[in-house]
Amino acid sequence: MKFANDLFLRAFTDERLPHPPVWLLRQAGRYLPEYRATRAKAGGFMDLCRSPSFCAEVLLQPLARYQLDAAIVFSDILTIPDAMGLGLSFGVGEGPRLARPLQSESAIDALRVPDVSTLQYVFDAVAECRRALTRDGVQSVPLIGFSGSPFTLACYMVEGAGSQNDFATTRRMMLQRPDLLERVLAANEQIVTDYLEQQARAGANVLMLFDSWGGVLAPLQYERFSLSSLRRIIAALKLRVPDVPIIVFSKGAGHSVAAIAAAGADAVHIDWQSDLSRARADAGESVTLQGNFDPLLLTTDAATIQRAVSETLASFDGKRRYIANLGHGITPDAQPELVAALVNAIRS
Amino acid sequence: MKFANDLFLRAFTDERLPHPPVWLLRQAGRYLPEYRATRAKAGGFMDLCRSPSFCAEVLLQPLARYQLDAAIVFSDILTIPDAMGLGLSFGVGEGPRLARPLQSESAIDALRVPDVSTLQYVFDAVAECRRALTRDGVQSVPLIGFSGSPFTLACYMVEGAGSQNDFATTRRMMLQRPDLLERVLAANEQIVTDYLEQQARAGANVLMLFDSWGGVLAPLQYERFSLSSLRRIIAALKLRVPDVPIIVFSKGAGHSVAAIAAAGADAVHIDWQSDLSRARADAGESVTLQGNFDPLLLTTDAATIQRAVSETLASFDGKRRYIANLGHGITPDAQPELVAALVNAIRS
Repeated sequence: MKFANDLFLRAFTDERLPHPPVWLLRQAGRYLPEYRATRAKAGGFMDLCRSPSFCAEVLLQPLARYQLDAAIVFSDILTIPDAMGLGLSFGVGEGPRLARPLQSESAIDALRVPDVSTLQYVFDAVAECRRALTRDGVQSVPLIGFSGSPFTLACYMVEGAGSQNDFATTRRMMLQRPDLLERVLAANEQIVTDYLEQQARAGANVLMLFDSWGGVLAPLQYERFSLSSLRRIIAALKLRVPDVPIIVFSKGAGHSVAAIAAAGADAVHIDWQSDLSRARADAGESVTLQGNFDPLLLTTDAATIQRAVSETLASFDGKRRYIANLGHGITPDAQPELVAALVNAIRS
Repeated sequence: MKFANDLFLRAFTDERLPHPPVWLLRQAGRYLPEYRATRAKAGGFMDLCRSPSFCAEVLLQPLARYQLDAAIVFSDILTIPDAMGLGLSFGVGEGPRLARPLQSESAIDALRVPDVSTLQYVFDAVAECRRALTRDGVQSVPLIGFSGSPFTLACYMVEGAGSQNDFATTRRMMLQRPDLLERVLAANEQIVTDYLEQQARAGANVLMLFDSWGGVLAPLQYERFSLSSLRRIIAALKLRVPDVPIIVFSKGAGHSVAAIAAAGADAVHIDWQSDLSRARADAGESVTLQGNFDPLLLTTDAATIQRAVSETLASFDGKRRYIANLGHGITPDAQPELVAALVNAIRS
């Protein structure tokens, strides 16, 4: 593999870099008018995810505007519950919804681990994204594949939708029938492992696990119901696709950075409610950190962004084992010119 | 002062107790039919808060049902923004709303620290609650007075309401104009100090600071925009009302338990997304911990509650410097008989 720009991959080594590589969670997204145009062409959100050519189109959009050092496959974490037959839909102006959530023991009895081939459209999108990044055998920047974590997927699968109350239905199952939740987690663990392996085989250079709702768990619960699955997934992937770095993002689990690092993650993504200096102390020197600028900065002004970048990069050593990114996804109200301001401030 | 039951106060000393004292955040609240009846009699929510006799009536309701070891004055943290003239109202089925939020520099220029006498109705409620607890010179259980923290009050004052997006308006002010936010915090700090002092003088035996939104801040921001005010308030109160223990609850700031303890708090209240064993390690042996049962337990079943209590009390030493409580307020859907199950499980 040859890369025109491999700064991102070098951040997984001990090398000192001239400046931190940077990419942004949800860098291809609704804040970009060209993304909205592609999405309108594609139809629904899942139609976009199911079309390798549209996925490659939106993948390239932020790379054309900004000097980014990585690209992430355009997809959604709910492809897996969809493949499990839970009836995924995205209403207009709403979040995702599952028609058949797992709210009874019989629903969980009926849950089957889908064959990974049902997710072939994602692997096709990975391959198409990889091709779109490559010219004359040289790939412009590395490509990241991703999956939701078993716990975060279980939150959606049990709740049937997002939540305003910290996934109370899921957590009530955890308190009353932890055995049922663990059966859902075991099914998820198996398919997530295969899913990430196949993304790597289709061309993803790096893999990322999103545990978006790990933060609703206290540390001991987090270990039992989320991190233990992540640990086994990482161990399996290290056997199956040994050279592919793995990034773990457990939003709200700043209390467990040391444990995530010890679970074998090559990089820990840090949310905006944590401090990178403390995360470095917790993670140690041999793990890469990624994050954690506040997405809210992209709704402020260039001077505020410059100040935040200066303060952050003064608070710890950002030139070794650090990848600049946001602490959460870009919001639709982010101003595209402020994204440029952030990227440029980090690079300079 | 004589107490029929002083277990709660003894938890602020090194004494080993037969079992942890227990009280519950929002123990007088909507989950109780008798509370809903009193509230209907009183009219609006603030009419209830403004009536010392209704406050005393709802104070006693949970004590009549459950073996609780403390009572908390019935009031609301938004009494202070109300006294500042920001136009507090509670819509039907909605959270609080401020008609005149502080969303411009001129609004902050016009902000005045109210005279504490404008909050006399709260001190009258404290005195009436204290009388209601006392018979023949003996007080049944200690009475807790409370206030919102300067930062949490500022969140409401700037945002004008609760928030689904982590108080983005307030945090945007923090990022762009930290000087403006610090002026709001300084005003709040002054009135909160006087407010808590006067509650102690009116009869509160213990004081509690609620930093309900401290968790939207990263640790370094938390230190600058919340804990620094709390530290000064605690220091002032220790001079003015030296014998009154102070409890601090910064929800979501489990990362800063050690810092809160070092700021002079006699007790740190721990939310349900933290572990008491880790909080004990962080806080050290000479600070009392309070919390942190998940309010969701009160919507499960007695066996689940018994298991949660056993696991929690096996995880650390609960008989010394520990006050059992919830990690957040009782929700309206809590089942009154499960509140009894929780209290009894803790006591046995």
